[in-house]
Amino acid sequence: MGDLVENKEWYVAAYSPEGVPTSDHLKLRTVSLSLAHESIPDDHLIVETLLLSVDPYLRGTITGTLEGLFIPQYQLNQVLTTFAVVRVIRSKDSKYSEGDILLNGYGLVAEYSIVPSSHIIRKIDPANGISLSDYLGSLGVPGFAAWLGIEVLGNPKPASNVFISAASGAVGMIAGQLAKIRGCRVIGSTGSDDKVKLIKEKFGYDDGFNYNIESDFDAALSKYFPDGIDVYLDNVGGKMLESVLNHVNKNARIPLCGMISQYNKVWTEREGIRNLLNMVGKEVRMEGFMIKSYLHRFGDFVKDMEKYLQEGKIKPKSKINIGIENFLESLNSVFSNSNIGKVVVQVKA
Amino acid sequence: MGDLVENKEWYVAAYSPEGVPTSDHLKLRTVSLSLAHESIPDDHLIVETLLLSVDPYLRGTITGTLEGLFIPQYQLNQVLTTFAVVRVIRSKDSKYSEGDILLNGYGLVAEYSIVPSSHIIRKIDPANGISLSDYLGSLGVPGFAAWLGIEVLGNPKPASNVFISAASGAVGMIAGQLAKIRGCRVIGSTGSDDKVKLIKEKFGYDDGFNYNIESDFDAALSKYFPDGIDVYLDNVGGKMLESVLNHVNKNARIPLCGMISQYNKVWTEREGIRNLLNMVGKEVRMEGFMIKSYLHRFGDFVKDMEKYLQEGKIKPKSKINIGIENFLESLNSVFSNSNIGKVVVQVKA
Ligand SMILES: NC(=O)c1ccc[n+]([C@@H]2O[C@H](COP(=O)([O-])OP(=O)(O)OC[C@H]3O[C@@H](n4cnc5c(N)ncnc54)[C@H](OP(=O)(O)O)[C@@H]3O)[C@@H](O)[C@H]2O)c1
Ligand SMILES: NC(=O)c1ccc[n+]([C@@H]2O[C@H](COP(=O)([O-])OP(=O)(O)OC[C@H]3O[C@@H](n4cnc5c(N)ncnc54)[C@H](OP(=O)(O)O)[C@@H]3O)[C@@H](O)[C@H]2O)c1
Repeated sequence: MGDLVENKEWYVAAYSPEGVPTSDHLKLRTVSLSLAHESIPDDHLIVETLLLSVDPYLRGTITGTLEGLFIPQYQLNQVLTTFAVVRVIRSKDSKYSEGDILLNGYGLVAEYSIVPSSHIIRKIDPANGISLSDYLGSLGVPGFAAWLGIEVLGNPKPASNVFISAASGAVGMIAGQLAKIRGCRVIGSTGSDDKVKLIKEKFGYDDGFNYNIESDFDAALSKYFPDGIDVYLDNVGGKMLESVLNHVNKNARIPLCGMISQYNKVWTEREGIRNLLNMVGKEVRMEGFMIKSYLHRFGDFVKDMEKYLQEGKIKPKSKINIGIENFLESLNSVFSNSNIGKVVVQVKA
Repeated sequence: MGDLVENKEWYVAAYSPEGVPTSDHLKLRTVSLSLAHESIPDDHLIVETLLLSVDPYLRGTITGTLEGLFIPQYQLNQVLTTFAVVRVIRSKDSKYSEGDILLNGYGLVAEYSIVPSSHIIRKIDPANGISLSDYLGSLGVPGFAAWLGIEVLGNPKPASNVFISAASGAVGMIAGQLAKIRGCRVIGSTGSDDKVKLIKEKFGYDDGFNYNIESDFDAALSKYFPDGIDVYLDNVGGKMLESVLNHVNKNARIPLCGMISQYNKVWTEREGIRNLLNMVGKEVRMEGFMIKSYLHRFGDFVKDMEKYLQEGKIKPKSKINIGIENFLESLNSVFSNSNIGKVVVQVKA
């Protein structure tokens, strides 16, 4: 490998406060990068990117602000970052050697990068039976969010009634399986009939519905929750959240993981929730959370999740889009019905 | 006293799903009642009503349903009940004697009534320096709600920023003083300049504003909370709640006590809250509560509150309307700006 490489990277070309980001906002460019050992400082690594995590919150980095998530905005020209699985090419940290596969919490959306080793979350053992993409899914951002939503904040009792929106997505597929492990009755909503089939057949949901077909959410929830809802893990917000509040049981819990149906609008244009008074009478607790505030629990989560994966109790699914060129299209796919499971971009095999 | 008395009582004549109740919905009638000792069963008392508690939730009993509070609807012709301070006229329970003053949790809105002694919450010692109306205010339903909202659910740290709406009302005046005892910076909103003066001068609020004048709530909250809001005790809901969500700090708590600005509308007509996504980014916890679910804490509350009252650390205020004839007008006053402090109706001195 020569010392200078042509390095492809995605950067922010313009902000986009509303709507889905386009190639006007995110652009791919090629820059030269030196991979020479002497060109990196101590406690740094040169890595090549294998897999990139595609997450809805990335929308926030290019909006100006994604009002409500308070994700720090990128500067113009800045390269995007995300969770990434990377392989070490050169190391100036004795903990890591050439060829090690690592999880990078601030991976540049680029083919190669120079990384302070403090950004590395963990070393990955490729021989332990867990596929690399799962480190970005069930063992990454969405898996941790699902675990926090169900195990920490929702905390449903066995046999209670659990509802999960965006049920076939990266968070939803793991959350549903965690709730099933707890012995709950679990229902999911998702955007196509195929995905409804998937959540029942692969992820073990008791039932589910296609919200594009059963678009009277109140009627759907009456049908699927004759005994009311005890825990709702909200991934979508808007009208679905409002309808859920008409079906909550006493002391229901609503962990707010995200509100993807509302991300592409300024806040004053978002759907207003008119029935929060139900939270008083039914004594409901609604609580937002961000994984970055719970990093002290990441170890507990990894222990649980690796066990479930290795025992086959949790079966994840990834949608692997090949080629760094597809990053923008992959990001847009999470704002549509076209993705399934955890979306990752494979940069290198 | 003769055995038969003419007994005035308020009953439900018609339901009123929207708007403020009128004399079409609640009517006063006179019925004969026997006060003879032999006319009551064992473990019952005949009592005369001294004071009646006037609470916003009573609206719910005559709406059909007050959608969201899930208050059981009264039947037509049924006499209203509320917390009441009563005096024993005849007793068939050895725990109580003629002349005892008691707090009745299900007091009929009537001059006289026959009460199963299981409805009695406590005996009142009129010589302990606490005025009788305080048993319905700071030591009654609203005081308990304020205590739960601040001490149990809001739990603000010293020096944190606390906001309370309907700040001069029965709940608000106690909540503000409890938060001051905890060493917080406490700001209130209320409906008139006189009430703003009152909360600052009598209830110890650090500051306050008249929401009818400073009607751009976002601007007002920017002004009064340059460092953001840590705890908001919500008594009013609607636009004020929405504005608060634009000013919350990380991990803010919002105990939902009530939403009086929304009670007189069916739910589909209520103001929608468009910025719940802020709860995700700021990791806010919002939780509804009803005092009846916390009766196991009533003893702790009474111990705290009696101490604060006797030490003069909490100074309550009552608005005493004289004459049972004024019950309807008193109830309507809590849906306007005309009441101050705890509203009670004095039936007998
Ligand atoms: N709080 C945290 O720390 C944290 C961490 C990770 C993720 N999250 C949040 O969790 C949620 C799920 O994230 P994810 O990574 O698992 O993404 P994902 O579910 O894999 O992908 C997003 C899915 O959302 C659904 N969707 C898109 N637009 C929608 C709309 N307008 N209405 C309803 N559903 C829509 C689509 O599925 P359908 O075809 O089923 O509609 C899409 O597949 C997001 O809100 C995300 O922001 C939060
Ligand atoms: N969860 C529980 O168990 C529980 C128990 C007791 C009370 N509560 C709730 O606590 C709240 C306060 O009750 P309270 O007994 O203390 O009554 P209160 O505050 O003494 O009286 C109600 C006050 O609300 C304000 N108000 C009326 N209409 C309003 C509107 N449209 N917009 C804004 N403010 C309005 C008025 O004060 P201003 O002049 O300041 O506007 C009025 O004085 C109510 O929501 C009640 O339902 C809940």
